Amino acid sequence: MMFRHKGTNMRWTFAAFMGHFILAFASLEETTQSGASGWTGKLLVVPMDGSHWTGVKAVAEEMGRRGHQVLVVIPEVSVRLGPGKHFTTRTFPVPYGQEELDELQARNAEASKRLPLLERIPTRISNMKKFVKLQTTTAESLLFNQELVDYLRKQNFDAVLTSPAVPTGAILAYNLSLPAVYMLRGLPCRLDSTATACPDPPSYVPRFFTKSTDRMSFGERVVNVLVSCLEPVLCKLSYWTVENMASRFLQRDVSLADILRTGAIWLMSGALWLMRYDFTLEFPKPLMPNMVLIGGINCEVRNPLTKEVEEFVEGSGDHGIVVFTLGSLIASIPKEKAEVFFKAFSMIPQRVLWRYTGEIPENVPKNVKLMKWLPQNDLLGHPKARAFITHGGTHGIYEGICNGVPMVMLPLFGDQSDNVHRVASRGVGVILDIHEITAESLVDALNTVITNSSYKEKMKKLSAIHNDRPMQPLDLAVYWTEFVMRHKGADHLRPAAHDLNWFQYHSLDVIGFLLCAVLIVTLAMLKCCALCWRKCCRKAQKRKAE
Amino acid sequence: MMFRHKGTNMRWTFAAFMGHFILAFASLEETTQSGASGWTGKLLVVPMDGSHWTGVKAVAEEMGRRGHQVLVVIPEVSVRLGPGKHFTTRTFPVPYGQEELDELQARNAEASKRLPLLERIPTRISNMKKFVKLQTTTAESLLFNQELVDYLRKQNFDAVLTSPAVPTGAILAYNLSLPAVYMLRGLPCRLDSTATACPDPPSYVPRFFTKSTDRMSFGERVVNVLVSCLEPVLCKLSYWTVENMASRFLQRDVSLADILRTGAIWLMSGALWLMRYDFTLEFPKPLMPNMVLIGGINCEVRNPLTKEVEEFVEGSGDHGIVVFTLGSLIASIPKEKAEVFFKAFSMIPQRVLWRYTGEIPENVPKNVKLMKWLPQNDLLGHPKARAFITHGGTHGIYEGICNGVPMVMLPLFGDQSDNVHRVASRGVGVILDIHEITAESLVDALNTVITNSSYKEKMKKLSAIHNDRPMQPLDLAVYWTEFVMRHKGADHLRPAAHDLNWFQYHSLDVIGFLLCAVLIVTLAMLKCCALCWRKCCRKAQKRKAE
Repeated sequence: MMFRHKGTNMRWTFAAFMGHFILAFASLEETTQSGASGWTGKLLVVPMDGSHWTGVKAVAEEMGRRGHQVLVVIPEVSVRLGPGKHFTTRTFPVPYGQEELDELQARNAEASKRLPLLERIPTRISNMKKFVKLQTTTAESLLFNQELVDYLRKQNFDAVLTSPAVPTGAILAYNLSLPAVYMLRGLPCRLDSTATACPDPPSYVPRFFTKSTDRMSFGERVVNVLVSCLEPVLCKLSYWTVENMASRFLQRDVSLADILRTGAIWLMSGALWLMRYDFTLEFPKPLMPNMVLIGGINCEVRNPLTKEVEEFVEGSGDHGIVVFTLGSLIASIPKEKAEVFFKAFSMIPQRVLWRYTGEIPENVPKNVKLMKWLPQNDLLGHPKARAFITHGGTHGIYEGICNGVPMVMLPLFGDQSDNVHRVASRGVGVILDIHEITAESLVDALNTVITNSSYKEKMKKLSAIHNDRPMQPLDLAVYWTEFVMRHKGADHLRPAAHDLNWFQYHSLDVIGFLLCAVLIVTLAMLKCCALCWRKCCRKAQKRKAE
Repeated sequence: MMFRHKGTNMRWTFAAFMGHFILAFASLEETTQSGASGWTGKLLVVPMDGSHWTGVKAVAEEMGRRGHQVLVVIPEVSVRLGPGKHFTTRTFPVPYGQEELDELQARNAEASKRLPLLERIPTRISNMKKFVKLQTTTAESLLFNQELVDYLRKQNFDAVLTSPAVPTGAILAYNLSLPAVYMLRGLPCRLDSTATACPDPPSYVPRFFTKSTDRMSFGERVVNVLVSCLEPVLCKLSYWTVENMASRFLQRDVSLADILRTGAIWLMSGALWLMRYDFTLEFPKPLMPNMVLIGGINCEVRNPLTKEVEEFVEGSGDHGIVVFTLGSLIASIPKEKAEVFFKAFSMIPQRVLWRYTGEIPENVPKNVKLMKWLPQNDLLGHPKARAFITHGGTHGIYEGICNGVPMVMLPLFGDQSDNVHRVASRGVGVILDIHEITAESLVDALNTVITNSSYKEKMKKLSAIHNDRPMQPLDLAVYWTEFVMRHKGADHLRPAAHDLNWFQYHSLDVIGFLLCAVLIVTLAMLKCCALCWRKCCRKAQKRKAE
């Protein structure tokens, strides 16, 4: 089988490790072991396509820059995955072509169309099935590529960095007995909570897709409890194909939660979880010691704007600009929907920069610049940014918060509806329904977030809190990835909860035992009392009889 | 009323703020607000006497050094509290003298004596009562000192830093409506978990004084569940006097948990909790977003040894030294007990440095140096340190771990017995019973930890993990204290769990409602079935009758 080496053709860089750890070790031996200087390792990266790539790529690049040997394994065909400056890529063949991916993107764009319920549900299920099938095919193409897996095994990596939302990397880490570092926002049906043994009481931790905040009415709490009761079933359904594939690959029956929590068959090392959120967006909830919060990791990478874009932005005067994207999976929207946006933009004084790859109509307003790719974060960081129209993906929302730009949000699918409700609950953004949207409602929403000072002020405070952290999220992610590589896992952060079944975890056996004990003692005491009573009665009867 | 100003006589230092935050703020405005440079505030510190002072003092000093105005309020008489280089102290009069404190220390030393059970229990209770009375008297002397409280109110502090184990500072913060920063290892009866709404399942989070690890047998789990059921009662009993005093001072009925979780009457800001542990000592368990781990905060402060001590240490040759202290509250031990130690030390080749203020016998072995005060951390950091004999206080244990020195542990009271069991479970120390100790058993224990390489190796690994952190604990503590000052609290980290009662928190109302709903639906369905059945039966009977 042929492998094409993208990027620097397996050029492992052995440059000196220049990381800036703040370590104070006593002896030289410890220093070397713990990587304060000079220590480098080997990292395997198994990324997921789409927006997940943004954060993983940033860490892979930084790890490479610091002198580690970083190998990124990606399919030959993908939407966003690709080579980097500081890491090596290795591709594997997949039995589909670019056209399938383009079709998937086109299908995603359909989400903005309003369909009748009877049509929408089968369409969504069919889309979901196609998506899962594509992911599973990709995973199989890697895992059952014996030559590639053997090659990876021989490399003796120190750890695997991966997105567990599609758990190819996690399954591979488990098989190669390597400690895993996961980067994620969260997993469907709270699989992340199950795999980390992290408590999340349904009384104040809202479940995905419920659109609730952490302050729920009684009715909302009922829904939340019901959803959390259904989650194990949903999990089984969602990951049925993947668990099947994992069992075939590993040649043993395994649950995905076991794979995720363990990190490796023999290690029992406990993986490290880099969570792409913080509590400016998320509602405060319990955490586990092996969770590291890196919300806003994508906000640091900044580049100057091109001259052309800079001129367009500067030309907006005091009115400033509006930035508009619908995420990496949707590049174009249906023509009739696009017309609504064009109409709205012709009615506002701001200039608009729009990531748009669809058919360009003749009557594009002069204040609108259409671009095939948008330097989103750099534009939001520009002092002239006034509002951000977004679909509500986590990356975009954190870029909005980090740069302090109020948002108009048009959620499409996945966790986006929850994200936008969290943002709206902070008073820093307005939600619009993409199916109901009109030019007037969009103009209204834009005017609200731009001219109502409450949005800007609240966003300023939120942004200040988000940015006020002792260490940048990228440095933190890199630090803990290196930690796992140095110490072959993070065993000391693995809770003993993993060794208990759910019955023991909730102390149900102990409670049962104690209830039985109380019951037996009570019964024994009642029996004693009854005996005493009978004896007394008999004596009294005898006395009477005498 | 007279106040004596210890230290620099109310000299507020306005030196430029030279903190080294790794912040990358977008605009100058945000930078100023968030204190990246130049920003200074006013911090009130209400410390607790004894070993708690170590960590609080380190933060107060560092805050002062960074240009903040730090005022430490302490009683006129104390065991360890005193002035510092970078903060101002203000003393308040107390109705007891140095002799009462000396008596308390002498009583603590008695803990090393073996007493019969019938004598031990009343002695312990009497000691505890004296301790609580002293603490309450000190708290009352501050809180009911109207002049002092008025003065503090006028200062417009940004936050209060305090040890909540004696909640004087917390009550004062609540009264002054200031956000609070707490520094603690843990509170009796898990009051810290209650006040932070932090889940700690009794199935794998061992309770204090049970001596269990996180991997418990069924019997140990039964004990753990029973202890956690008793905790609310224990809490009520332990803090009854203090809650009473707080209610009198605040002129309203308050629970201590409410005071601790709120931080201030009107703010509802949620306090920040600096926890003096990490997971090299503690067993992994859930955390809350407003908990910051600063275990080992006292390990950073290092000074060179005096010439005399250095010569003594260097003279130990390859055998090295043993460091021996029983903590700040016990300076001397009974003569007959001391003789056991002297005898043991005469039998080992190492040199011993012993913090000892008791009567010095004639036959002190040549390899023993008695010192009234011991630079414990500097000695443990010396390459010649071979073993550490300790009572198992948290500070000492972290100094042992940080410097990688195996331990022989003699727990006396408080959380020490739990601490030493945690250390022993890591295979880096040996526990001895101070009541049963003989010269032979001590020599055996010392030889084990010094010559059995397993102890040294495991300690080396544990030390490497403990020291491998992205930021030093002192910097982290200072950072988050400043965060609370900058943002007037840490509202975004306050879980909504605080707004629920325990019934709602555990979703018992929802579960009850759902059970009722299921019951009603089932009954209704049964009723329907019964009706249908009856109708069918009647029809059949009619047919038969026809």
